[in-house]
Amino acid sequence: MSPKITTELLKQLRQVMKSPKYVQEPVQAYIVPSGDAHQSEYIAPCDCRRAFISGFDGSAGTAIVTEQHAAMWTDGRYFLQAAHQMDNNWTLMKMGLKDTPTQEDWLVSVLPEGSKVGVDPFIIPADQWKRMSKALRSAGHDLVPVKENLIDTIWTDCPQRPCKPLITLDLSYTGVSWRDKIVALRSKMAERKVLWFVVTALDEVAWLFNLRGSDVEYNPVFFAYAVIGMNTIRLFIDGDRMMDPAVREHLQLDSTLEPEFKIQVMPYGSILSELQAVGAGLSPKEKVWLSDKASYALTEAIPKAYRYLTPYTPICIAKAVKNSSETEGMRRAHIKDAVALCELFNWLEKEVPKGTVTEIVAADKAEEFRSQQKDFVELSFATISSTGPNGAVIHYKPVPETNRTLSVNEIYLLDSGAQYKDGTTDVTRTMHFGTPSAYEKECFTYVLKGHIAVSAAIFPNGTKGHLLDSFARSALWDCGLDYLHGTGHGVGSFLNVHEGPCGISYKTFADEPLEAGMIVSDEPGYYEDGSFGIRIENVVLVIPAETKYNFKNRGSLTFEPLTLVPIQMKMIDVNLLTQKECNWVNDYHQKCREVIGAELERQGRHEALQWLIRETEPLVRV
Amino acid sequence: MSPKITTELLKQLRQVMKSPKYVQEPVQAYIVPSGDAHQSEYIAPCDCRRAFISGFDGSAGTAIVTEQHAAMWTDGRYFLQAAHQMDNNWTLMKMGLKDTPTQEDWLVSVLPEGSKVGVDPFIIPADQWKRMSKALRSAGHDLVPVKENLIDTIWTDCPQRPCKPLITLDLSYTGVSWRDKIVALRSKMAERKVLWFVVTALDEVAWLFNLRGSDVEYNPVFFAYAVIGMNTIRLFIDGDRMMDPAVREHLQLDSTLEPEFKIQVMPYGSILSELQAVGAGLSPKEKVWLSDKASYALTEAIPKAYRYLTPYTPICIAKAVKNSSETEGMRRAHIKDAVALCELFNWLEKEVPKGTVTEIVAADKAEEFRSQQKDFVELSFATISSTGPNGAVIHYKPVPETNRTLSVNEIYLLDSGAQYKDGTTDVTRTMHFGTPSAYEKECFTYVLKGHIAVSAAIFPNGTKGHLLDSFARSALWDCGLDYLHGTGHGVGSFLNVHEGPCGISYKTFADEPLEAGMIVSDEPGYYEDGSFGIRIENVVLVIPAETKYNFKNRGSLTFEPLTLVPIQMKMIDVNLLTQKECNWVNDYHQKCREVIGAELERQGRHEALQWLIRETEPLVRV
Repeated sequence: MSPKITTELLKQLRQVMKSPKYVQEPVQAYIVPSGDAHQSEYIAPCDCRRAFISGFDGSAGTAIVTEQHAAMWTDGRYFLQAAHQMDNNWTLMKMGLKDTPTQEDWLVSVLPEGSKVGVDPFIIPADQWKRMSKALRSAGHDLVPVKENLIDTIWTDCPQRPCKPLITLDLSYTGVSWRDKIVALRSKMAERKVLWFVVTALDEVAWLFNLRGSDVEYNPVFFAYAVIGMNTIRLFIDGDRMMDPAVREHLQLDSTLEPEFKIQVMPYGSILSELQAVGAGLSPKEKVWLSDKASYALTEAIPKAYRYLTPYTPICIAKAVKNSSETEGMRRAHIKDAVALCELFNWLEKEVPKGTVTEIVAADKAEEFRSQQKDFVELSFATISSTGPNGAVIHYKPVPETNRTLSVNEIYLLDSGAQYKDGTTDVTRTMHFGTPSAYEKECFTYVLKGHIAVSAAIFPNGTKGHLLDSFARSALWDCGLDYLHGTGHGVGSFLNVHEGPCGISYKTFADEPLEAGMIVSDEPGYYEDGSFGIRIENVVLVIPAETKYNFKNRGSLTFEPLTLVPIQMKMIDVNLLTQKECNWVNDYHQKCREVIGAELERQGRHEALQWLIRETEPLVRV
Repeated sequence: MSPKITTELLKQLRQVMKSPKYVQEPVQAYIVPSGDAHQSEYIAPCDCRRAFISGFDGSAGTAIVTEQHAAMWTDGRYFLQAAHQMDNNWTLMKMGLKDTPTQEDWLVSVLPEGSKVGVDPFIIPADQWKRMSKALRSAGHDLVPVKENLIDTIWTDCPQRPCKPLITLDLSYTGVSWRDKIVALRSKMAERKVLWFVVTALDEVAWLFNLRGSDVEYNPVFFAYAVIGMNTIRLFIDGDRMMDPAVREHLQLDSTLEPEFKIQVMPYGSILSELQAVGAGLSPKEKVWLSDKASYALTEAIPKAYRYLTPYTPICIAKAVKNSSETEGMRRAHIKDAVALCELFNWLEKEVPKGTVTEIVAADKAEEFRSQQKDFVELSFATISSTGPNGAVIHYKPVPETNRTLSVNEIYLLDSGAQYKDGTTDVTRTMHFGTPSAYEKECFTYVLKGHIAVSAAIFPNGTKGHLLDSFARSALWDCGLDYLHGTGHGVGSFLNVHEGPCGISYKTFADEPLEAGMIVSDEPGYYEDGSFGIRIENVVLVIPAETKYNFKNRGSLTFEPLTLVPIQMKMIDVNLLTQKECNWVNDYHQKCREVIGAELERQGRHEALQWLIRETEPLVRV
């Protein structure tokens, strides 16, 4: 990787920062955040502005350019990558290190008195604006919204905003019609006494209307906003996508409907002016509900007294609790996904000893097997296919420069998943194609014990996921080991592979309680820099648990694994397992054999079936 | 309990709420919080203003009186008690129930437009003021500080503020001189670039100067503030306590000292004017450090731009990490405390079957045995001595109306502790003096498993206590059981039995990481309304743990029990314990036998020694 040469670009940016064509008054600093106007985790190429101006294309980072300086804040995952990708014009600000200043502190230290700091108000979330603005103001500076994105003005070959065709999902996939979702939403709005709800997150728009898209890689979403009133529905979306007869039919655009279900389609770019019109027409006590992470631009469109902001929207919370159609879809998707992985692992077992399988080849082969399955759409994230020391790089993605060949001497870690029309998968297995060392088995077994501790946990209704995080670490902690990431995240149903409002992490306390029907990942790991990485990940469904007693009638919950892929037995040191843990593994493998075996049989995949049968023999403690 | 008749008092209060003698403009509502000017958990009789005006004397509650209404907010622990103690003038606001309005919402619903709500600015913490003030302002009302406490103006027989003699602690108890504590504090101040630090919590003043008092029951503290500058020390304290030669000698008041260690003694009541003078003399960038829980009055004395507020002060954090002198003192205190409890339990075993021992008698007997021990000062909290259904009342304190007789048919729960000059204790044991039922044993054993899971936990340096809370619940959760309180709190060293900044609770996320030298309680429980209560509590010391590996060189921690009192074996269902748990109990009992046995022997308490030996026989799993 050679760094991107940014001298000329920075010169241009500094010019437009002073140009009356774009800014009312010159700005002495310009902030380029990572995100898009919807606070998406994955963004479209046209939104990769920070990567364009700096060369650094990791998933997290904020660039700030002043007349003299250019600085990039990113976290520990990306220190090396950012240093490689950026030229000498840039200073790397290593977040999380003691001596690294915050963006605010750094700005205050370098800016001349009474400076203006510009930012695109559509890209910065309202809560971040507030914090940054307050800090700057108390030091005598001003944070100002710059309407036109200054990067876009100098990005001559900026890709177009994608505008791909939509997929309509019928009731057999979604379980609930968009009309019923609107009714439920309006009842939540009535409960909170709000008159309007603004849908800004792309997966929330997609979920609400039972539509999917492919504007952003890995995430089946499309660029749109929606504004739901008690009697109106406005959908802000571009292109000729609304010309598609299937979409028109799905949204009943040409039917005579009760007025409160009539969807008004409007241009994507008109959201701000429409919302300002809504804001201007409000009477006292009329409120508009927005996510507190919505952009500053949209939040400001509603006068402060009329805003109702929450960290999680009612759609986010409703979307997280899967109904039976969604759950059944997720089950089907996971069965197909397991078939593909059984094929892959059987194939790897034969091919790896030949020395011809690289990380990229293995990742491609995984995609090939997945793509043979019914209703396959695309991958759900960039496959992490890593062997030996690359396995210790938690967010590794093989590229030609790092591509390593799998061998019988190294641990192989595969974290991968797909979007099927009936569900989203995300699974990690760690394998050895030769003979693992006693130490590797020991570490793997601690990780497995942590995985089981979460998966088999029984906990009261109302428990938040972060309270389960330590269960995943206890066996590692006992030996002085640990891993530096959370244990689980919410998973969408043919939607984003990471979604709120639930998760299992020591870091999050703002998560919503786990409820039956929620789906999260369970993925403890252990990583040894320069040597290997281990992670065992299943996607699990929250289900009611039967317990001997029932304190305060609260009821209990537990998890049911949706992922049904064998956990490699040669990596397990059986004697480190308790009898209960051993039984868990055997029950799990028995279920893999039954459910996936039947599907392999049905698909005529006999060799993979033999592999599955061998890999699901019961463990015996000695 | 008959309710307090408050008609006349409320009439008087409503008069002073309008009297120009006390308020600049009439206030339409007056708030009476629970606390004192130091945000203490336990308060002196002269500070029990809310109890005086309402009759309700629970530890938590806020009264608000308007021209028409009088309302009391309290939590679930006190619903019954408050309802019994208050007359019809009062409306009970049950906090935590869905339909109960917040204080702000209620005020807004009952106040006439443009009202003024008064509160004593010394009693309300700055963070609460801010929240309340914002809510009222946005509804068109004003929160106003009323200098003179309006309750005090009508409380004709208000007790005097206590002003008891001080105890000086020499280095053998404290390990660090007050001068060295000042030096360390100033270095923390220099790190954060603050020029002044205001000590507002009573236990922080006591700890800083190595002094103790007895102004507040159970807490060895005295009424005082301190303001520490880089070159000055001001101690605000009343009475002739500074005339005591031992205190003068201890604080070196009559010695020629470097000026930066010369303590200026000032009247307690002059803190506000002195702090205002400090505030007025500040230059830009000069900051004053305060707890964010300090009173509104003191916080406002410092102009906003000069304030540096933190949730935990540097003294709070330093005080939590006990040095070796303090740790050794705590060990000695716990040995003496265990001697007293062995005597008590041996005595109870003989006396309970006679049917003459009530909860109060047992509590008094426990105090009697403790008071026989060297350096005993007082109890560290009101003894919870509860049998049968009373055990399910988590904050129970026996009073004549509820006093129950211990019997061979009911579980007995004793949660008690003492202040010794060398340390503070807090221990809960749950006993049966007859034959416990299989169900009682089952529940007890789950609680024990939780207790052991925390006590034996190994976790990385930097772990916050709340991440350990679920370990205490896991065995109960597996059977659908739970308890509705936290698992542990910080414990002072001859100081408050509850102290920050660490603890073990699902509720607290603002706790500081556990560090070697910190001392917390480990006290899971199980409570069955109307039947029984179970709790097993040890005070434990955070110590470094030896582990097989050492990830990222972080080091690991675990706990060492300081409490050494046998856990009643007849309550344990051994077959529900794992071998590891069984070994833990046997090791613990072995240590009790050795350490406490030697002390019982030394004190010639032979009968109690025989009891201890019998109660510490090894458990055997069958």
